Amino acid sequence: MQHATRRALLAALLCAALSIDVHAQTDPLPSWNDGAVKTSIVDFVARVTTQGTPDFVPPAERIATFDNDGTLWSEQPVYFQLQFALDRIKAMAPQHPEWKTKQPFKAVLDGDMKALMAGGMKSIGQIMAVTHAGMTTEEFAKTVTDWLASARHPRFNRPYTELVYQPMLELLAYLRTNGIKTFIVSGGGIEFMRPWVERVYGIPPEQVVGSSGMTKFQMRDGKPVLTKEAKVEFIDDGPGKPAGINRFIGRRPVFAFGNSDGDQQMLQWTAAGSGARFIGIVHHTDAEREWAYDRNSHVGKLDKALDEANAKGWTVVDMKRDWRRVFP
Amino acid sequence: MQHATRRALLAALLCAALSIDVHAQTDPLPSWNDGAVKTSIVDFVARVTTQGTPDFVPPAERIATFDNDGTLWSEQPVYFQLQFALDRIKAMAPQHPEWKTKQPFKAVLDGDMKALMAGGMKSIGQIMAVTHAGMTTEEFAKTVTDWLASARHPRFNRPYTELVYQPMLELLAYLRTNGIKTFIVSGGGIEFMRPWVERVYGIPPEQVVGSSGMTKFQMRDGKPVLTKEAKVEFIDDGPGKPAGINRFIGRRPVFAFGNSDGDQQMLQWTAAGSGARFIGIVHHTDAEREWAYDRNSHVGKLDKALDEANAKGWTVVDMKRDWRRVFP
Repeated sequence: MQHATRRALLAALLCAALSIDVHAQTDPLPSWNDGAVKTSIVDFVARVTTQGTPDFVPPAERIATFDNDGTLWSEQPVYFQLQFALDRIKAMAPQHPEWKTKQPFKAVLDGDMKALMAGGMKSIGQIMAVTHAGMTTEEFAKTVTDWLASARHPRFNRPYTELVYQPMLELLAYLRTNGIKTFIVSGGGIEFMRPWVERVYGIPPEQVVGSSGMTKFQMRDGKPVLTKEAKVEFIDDGPGKPAGINRFIGRRPVFAFGNSDGDQQMLQWTAAGSGARFIGIVHHTDAEREWAYDRNSHVGKLDKALDEANAKGWTVVDMKRDWRRVFP
Repeated sequence: MQHATRRALLAALLCAALSIDVHAQTDPLPSWNDGAVKTSIVDFVARVTTQGTPDFVPPAERIATFDNDGTLWSEQPVYFQLQFALDRIKAMAPQHPEWKTKQPFKAVLDGDMKALMAGGMKSIGQIMAVTHAGMTTEEFAKTVTDWLASARHPRFNRPYTELVYQPMLELLAYLRTNGIKTFIVSGGGIEFMRPWVERVYGIPPEQVVGSSGMTKFQMRDGKPVLTKEAKVEFIDDGPGKPAGINRFIGRRPVFAFGNSDGDQQMLQWTAAGSGARFIGIVHHTDAEREWAYDRNSHVGKLDKALDEANAKGWTVVDMKRDWRRVFP
């Protein structure tokens, strides 16, 4: 090889290396593989933030809403909030000797999920009532924080808050960098999420919409407290999601991400606004790194919303194809 | 007068003029008279924003909540939202010929407030139901915007949105300049406030907590809409205010301002937090420039909360004494 050629080759290699380096440094979404999905995100953000273009959205109106379970963190084999409730039953059992023989508590203490599920929603409701009511809001927040500090996911043996999706963390940060305000709109309990979402997602409590139970204002030893009651106040799921967005945010999002049929109405509501809109769905296609499920799943069923996404050209993330990395 | 003396005098006058000028330019609260109330506000803001001091509050936790009626704008002779409802009845009357003989609508159309009030809360409920339900959220927002554009207050002959308090506008801006996030927490309707509070107060819709009716998600001609139903969802008043703060904001405020007994629990809830707290009450003492009322008023009754403010040393604004100017 001639000296000049060698020099040119070295220069080319160096440039390539530098270019990779520069790319890694400047790519705000390094855990997203290049392709149509990533392009659709980056293009949308460029369009709504470029002044003077027809798709420009004023900063105050840049609202993005994200489902949580299955969209920002995993939801298998059971919703993490249900696992929290089951663990709370075990922790509370010493104070409730009667649970040893009383369903559905007995099933939980025996680890008999089949017996628990046989009781259907009524059993789940009883479990939720004793674990999510009867204490102050501050006491409840502490049980959530304590649980997250010690509980480990059965498959991955990691804290539940480490089973969040790295590509979605990058997406949240990328949107915020571009002046797009990020909200959670989840069927999960609002008070179950608020103690940790700021630390984990960078989303403050006041930007969390979720299901809730009633609270009651009371004076206790001269100090005001809010006690949680075993009475459903709001279910932020399905048609409840646009209602929740209207109630809590009062503006239609320009960007929405979900993963199941429970998000379909939120996606429809977002898509129906005038101007540029981004509608995204996380499709769980990666049994090896996470889980693969959709139309027949009991948790996070994705059927009608997938059909609508395909019909309307919404962005469907194929987890296996589009995500370089799943967890942090 | 000797030349040197004259020069000194002129210099002194010039300096005084400059100093006034500098003061006017830098005072963030020019419509507040100097005194204990203004000092308590400025001192509080300095304390919570000075890093390294025991009262420092991290930016994310700097939440301020304001009642609306009687705290940010006037509420006499009737709550402006009620006036909106009465005006809507008149506007809708041509489509409802039966109202000419049917109470409580007849009373409204006859301008007979006494007959209307004789029907009590039931009559008010009927008025609210037909004027605040049966349309989409977008249609309702338009009626509010249209009303504000044309309606004039009977005493001041000005648009209702000009009957906001100039000192409170300055206070809202001052807090935001210091990284304190401003929220409305009002007994008024959340959907009645959101169409105009951003323009008037600089408070975005997602930072408004208020009373609400149920909404229903529906498809209309293939387009999703939220229709307002004649069913109360939440009353954000009295003990409802801390519950509303917990539900919508999820953090305890460090700063709260109200004007009536309906704000007492919000003020208690705010005061009960650990660390520095500012608790303020607007006391309506100025019959000439605005109104004077407190313990015996039907609108904005201030009785128990005034006793508690006096007992606990909360900041009570004497409108006549403390405000240089009332309206913009």
